[in-house]
Amino acid sequence: MVPHEVLARARLLAAPGVDGPVSRALEQITGRPVEHPYGGEPDGPFLYVGDTLPDALRTPRLVWFHSVNAGTDALLAAGPWPREALLTRTVGRMGERIAQYVLAWILAECQSVPEHTAQHAGARWHRLPSTLAAGQTAVVHGTGRIGSAVAALLRACSLHTVGVGRTPREVPPGFDRVVTAGGDEERAVLAEARWVVSTLPLTGATEGFFDDARFTAMRGASFLNVGRGACVDMAALEAALRSGTVGRAVLDVLPEEPPATGDRVWGLPRTVVTSHSAGITADEDVVTDFATCWEAVTEGRMPALAVDTGRGY
Amino acid sequence: MVPHEVLARARLLAAPGVDGPVSRALEQITGRPVEHPYGGEPDGPFLYVGDTLPDALRTPRLVWFHSVNAGTDALLAAGPWPREALLTRTVGRMGERIAQYVLAWILAECQSVPEHTAQHAGARWHRLPSTLAAGQTAVVHGTGRIGSAVAALLRACSLHTVGVGRTPREVPPGFDRVVTAGGDEERAVLAEARWVVSTLPLTGATEGFFDDARFTAMRGASFLNVGRGACVDMAALEAALRSGTVGRAVLDVLPEEPPATGDRVWGLPRTVVTSHSAGITADEDVVTDFATCWEAVTEGRMPALAVDTGRGY
Repeated sequence: MVPHEVLARARLLAAPGVDGPVSRALEQITGRPVEHPYGGEPDGPFLYVGDTLPDALRTPRLVWFHSVNAGTDALLAAGPWPREALLTRTVGRMGERIAQYVLAWILAECQSVPEHTAQHAGARWHRLPSTLAAGQTAVVHGTGRIGSAVAALLRACSLHTVGVGRTPREVPPGFDRVVTAGGDEERAVLAEARWVVSTLPLTGATEGFFDDARFTAMRGASFLNVGRGACVDMAALEAALRSGTVGRAVLDVLPEEPPATGDRVWGLPRTVVTSHSAGITADEDVVTDFATCWEAVTEGRMPALAVDTGRGY
Repeated sequence: MVPHEVLARARLLAAPGVDGPVSRALEQITGRPVEHPYGGEPDGPFLYVGDTLPDALRTPRLVWFHSVNAGTDALLAAGPWPREALLTRTVGRMGERIAQYVLAWILAECQSVPEHTAQHAGARWHRLPSTLAAGQTAVVHGTGRIGSAVAALLRACSLHTVGVGRTPREVPPGFDRVVTAGGDEERAVLAEARWVVSTLPLTGATEGFFDDARFTAMRGASFLNVGRGACVDMAALEAALRSGTVGRAVLDVLPEEPPATGDRVWGLPRTVVTSHSAGITADEDVVTDFATCWEAVTEGRMPALAVDTGRGY
């Protein structure tokens, strides 16, 4: 934690993009001016609010970094994390946003939204299939805040929700049940699933998580990725789409974004790539979440939005 | 109600389309064979299960007509209803189905589903806007079973739901509040609305209900019609789309279906016409709802699915 006397004299630095109303709100919360450093390291302890950490500031004087994003994988991968520095992140209404994205694409498939749009453009009026999502099984990988929010919204449409987590634990809100990743139970639920949704963060343990074994265990499920692109072995996904064990794919995240014009992803059958739009953070989210963390830190508590920098989320 | 001794000797007639498993299920429920009449009127009391009532069967010997559809406007408009005949209808999971259709199109707009689909087809990857539906106001016309089901599902996405009904009454499930059609309150909620959803049945009172006054009271709302096409004055809708008081329209029902190739509806700006697919009834719905009505009738109760043939729903 950040000692009181250190916090009291720490300067508040922020990335160039953190300006305007957000900057003013941070000044109000912390009672000190926001500085935008373009040069080297400050001469005393400092907090930093931003997306990436400039190399010059990756020093023991950094006492707290608040990320304006939810994912901190790129930040942690860019260099060793200063051992004593607190890392917190902005989650905002990301759970709700990602949940609405997932439900939008599930219902779009059930209600043939793209097919109706195309039919309308051609001034045609034929009955197209529509399916009630009720009773279908959605398997959600990741049972944290975001996975829970996704599951809860899907359950409002009467889907049966199964979570897949690293370690067995109590059933989190939104889920009908949870199973442990990597075992027979997971294989069984992948075979039942009408929908498989990844909300996984990218860590050493989740890189290439969706591999041949998982994709071939599915029986025609639609696969939605709203976590991180590198959690998917793209060659395995392509093979599964071609063989049919994956029925459709909706990919909001990719191993490389934006994908090049010639990227194989553009040729995947029955796939839609969206532009990392499921989990945007709004300015108000940054301010709200920073304020919550500030309150915890000043009261000597560990903020709920703190990242375990070893584990990676 | 149908007297016991009449029900006991009534024959069971069904439309040609009511066959296979549905027909067998009806035989099991009623303990008598299903007959498909192609000729004239039977010589004694009879029940009929179907979509339309053949003229030859529009007689005082008809004791009970069970409609395989939810809407009975066409049936009632086709000729005078035999005074003593009970009319029941199939609602099935229609509330749920229509609610999922409505939510699909609302979220499709919030999440730019058609735009992402088009962008993907062109192998392009640019950020497109996405909006959290939470906090937006949805005004739902019709506060019966279907309106309630729509409102309840929208509320699961944290929308604020306002019902518009003919008569003030207790707030039905799913709604945050209800207002009476035709007054200042309705005009005020139409001005606040991000979404206006019609679930109205077609009756003498609702024909052309969405007129100039209502459409010009809106301030850019998206209009979704899942009720009946003739409840909308299409010229008024066109004017509102052109002036912008209606932002977008999604029309699952039209005054004439299917619309002709040259119908003006194909030229409406920012509109999608879908092929009356929101409220399909499945075979299992017909059987389940008929069975519920049968149980009520044999116990001397009025079925909850009975239609007031004067009022029209």
